[in-house]
Amino acid sequence: MNDIKQKIEMANMEALKRINEADPVLVDIAPAGEAIPGLEDRMILHSGPPVDWLRMSGAQRGSMLGAAIFEGWAKDAEEATKLFAGGAIRFEPNHPHQAVGPMAGTISPSMPVWIVENKTVGNLAFCRQVERFQQFGDYGEEALQGLRLWRDVWAPALKKGLRQMGGLPLKPIIAKSLQMGDELHNRPVAASSLFANAMACPLIEADVPKGQLIGTIKYITNHELIFLALAMAAAKSSVDPAAGIEYSTVVTAMARNGTDFGIRVSGLGDEWFTAPAPRVEGLYFPGYGPADAGADMGDSAITETVGWGGFVLAGATGILALVGGTPEEAMAYSRDMRQITVGASNNYRMPIMGFQGAPVGIDIRKVVQTGIVPIIDTAIAHRNPGYSIIGAGLVRAPFECFKKALVRFSEKYGPNRTS
Amino acid sequence: MNDIKQKIEMANMEALKRINEADPVLVDIAPAGEAIPGLEDRMILHSGPPVDWLRMSGAQRGSMLGAAIFEGWAKDAEEATKLFAGGAIRFEPNHPHQAVGPMAGTISPSMPVWIVENKTVGNLAFCRQVERFQQFGDYGEEALQGLRLWRDVWAPALKKGLRQMGGLPLKPIIAKSLQMGDELHNRPVAASSLFANAMACPLIEADVPKGQLIGTIKYITNHELIFLALAMAAAKSSVDPAAGIEYSTVVTAMARNGTDFGIRVSGLGDEWFTAPAPRVEGLYFPGYGPADAGADMGDSAITETVGWGGFVLAGATGILALVGGTPEEAMAYSRDMRQITVGASNNYRMPIMGFQGAPVGIDIRKVVQTGIVPIIDTAIAHRNPGYSIIGAGLVRAPFECFKKALVRFSEKYGPNRTS
Repeated sequence: MNDIKQKIEMANMEALKRINEADPVLVDIAPAGEAIPGLEDRMILHSGPPVDWLRMSGAQRGSMLGAAIFEGWAKDAEEATKLFAGGAIRFEPNHPHQAVGPMAGTISPSMPVWIVENKTVGNLAFCRQVERFQQFGDYGEEALQGLRLWRDVWAPALKKGLRQMGGLPLKPIIAKSLQMGDELHNRPVAASSLFANAMACPLIEADVPKGQLIGTIKYITNHELIFLALAMAAAKSSVDPAAGIEYSTVVTAMARNGTDFGIRVSGLGDEWFTAPAPRVEGLYFPGYGPADAGADMGDSAITETVGWGGFVLAGATGILALVGGTPEEAMAYSRDMRQITVGASNNYRMPIMGFQGAPVGIDIRKVVQTGIVPIIDTAIAHRNPGYSIIGAGLVRAPFECFKKALVRFSEKYGPNRTS
Repeated sequence: MNDIKQKIEMANMEALKRINEADPVLVDIAPAGEAIPGLEDRMILHSGPPVDWLRMSGAQRGSMLGAAIFEGWAKDAEEATKLFAGGAIRFEPNHPHQAVGPMAGTISPSMPVWIVENKTVGNLAFCRQVERFQQFGDYGEEALQGLRLWRDVWAPALKKGLRQMGGLPLKPIIAKSLQMGDELHNRPVAASSLFANAMACPLIEADVPKGQLIGTIKYITNHELIFLALAMAAAKSSVDPAAGIEYSTVVTAMARNGTDFGIRVSGLGDEWFTAPAPRVEGLYFPGYGPADAGADMGDSAITETVGWGGFVLAGATGILALVGGTPEEAMAYSRDMRQITVGASNNYRMPIMGFQGAPVGIDIRKVVQTGIVPIIDTAIAHRNPGYSIIGAGLVRAPFECFKKALVRFSEKYGPNRTS
């Protein structure tokens, strides 16, 4: 083995070890402006790599408008548009702020965010509430009402419950839910159910007022996607310590903004390697079709980055009714993902594959060598602002991102060969 | 097609239709003595076909002693043994009383039972609480304390919650849990979680006192087997209307008492067709092994009778860590069960098999013709009285039961051929 190859292997084993040793615990819920470093007033975070207002996808623009109206910075979409276009409201990607957000991923200062601490290292990760409206680009009154209930009723109650119980370890819930047909991205239904049960007693014990208590328990026991935000924050907190390892070719983020798909690589610092966001192959809700769809969007591919989502589709065949495909295809996806990852999870296992660990740590070398790109479960947003969710499906990460990253890797770590 | 064969096919389609059309709803919880027809004072119901005291298995005797002490009919096991042996406490099987019970299946008058109504027909079915001690033959103080908490704290609270909500439809929970890796017999973990989700708000809204409320919610959110009793009552309420159809060769009960394995057949009335209860192949808890094991026991095979449990093992591979075996074997079991059933469920589907319906309606003719006998998930009790659960595994229904039933069928419905 030549010297550089050995350095890469060791660096990648270190990255795998850090991801495997992560211990994500839900520790708090707090307004984003208080919790997230660098999120300032008149600033909104968003999913994916950086993008400017003119190139921003319709759904992400719609979601931005909604956040600006929700914050009271603008009275309507027209006024908000002017503020964004003129630079009076700034925006930056979530990832550099230790944050992730589903779909448009917009996080504005007064939105309460889930706070997950990776107890092994002590780093925090943040994710916003998951819902089916404003995060997809809907800025209507009903969409914003969901954000207000979250801010004023549900999040404060859950915060009390979390303090009552002293934090909720997420690893046991994630491990269990993967044996209950979840893949934790499009289908976190078991984890959401287990989460609701874990919170019920602490919410009662914390003396949340009865009306708020009932409202909050109704919210968490009926929200089948609630755990997606926790899976995302858990994934982000688990993979962040694996970033910045010299010589590592492991992917530490895959994120999309509806315009570009970007990845970041451990040994390549904060740089984004981007390609146009692909179209999603999927099933549409009645009244919508492929012509309505925006391109791939969201930080939620952080779940695939740590080996969940599309990577464990074999164990989550219940999702096929939502995204299409056959059990055999699902099994093939999970087998394929083994070929482009550096190892397996020692926590998260798939019964249907004989309790093998989930495939962890996407290696840009293996992607380029095999031509196999990561498979990602996702939802579909409209191509224009103002719509809620219109469908769900599967998407492949663009090969070009991995190729660009490998070229940069060669430039940085030459000699001019990487394997 | 000859005349008798046509009559059988039509009768079996009618049986399948009745099972498929069942709509089980959890309507109440009440003391068995008030709820169950024919359960009198100084009488205990038990699992399986009829058995006398001398032939009764050790675990079932132990469970009977526990029930007698719990009722206050005896101060200890010695006194209780005399009462049973002398006939001062009577016992009868659950099934003729519209009831089912897990493992020893003992139901005594003051034990609250779950009451499920099949809304399609209006018939009721009853099942006792599932726990890991007294139903396995443990009659110690700690085992009985669990029965008292159920009687005095948890069951009364749940009853209030059920009244508050006006009953809980079980069909949606069952259908959903089968897509979450449950088989509803040894592994009802998803259904139990969904059940706890559904009960949380009604319990709060029903103004259950805070201490009792917290105790009950702790109980239901931590009891991964709680739904087994509801699956059993749902199954019993679903299959009972399919009993007593002239010419039908469909099995309407499979039940074991640790001594005998018995089946009942739709066209053959209330008669039991029995064979010695087989030994279970399984995995044991530390300190126990096959030499300690009692034979197969429990009414819980009512779940397989309607197409769950071992019949849907393909979709519940998470259970293999508990009972042993491989995903390929699990898939083969579910495929095999198609060969001995009259049809498929149109409610309960398996994503891993391309959303095919569960195999429903065991046909004694097909069992005898193919030599394939039903596969059953089960727990393992000790061969002696006084023990709690010692393991779990898989068991095959004895071929002899089906052969005996087919012989009787020929006698009753001759001419001397049945296919």
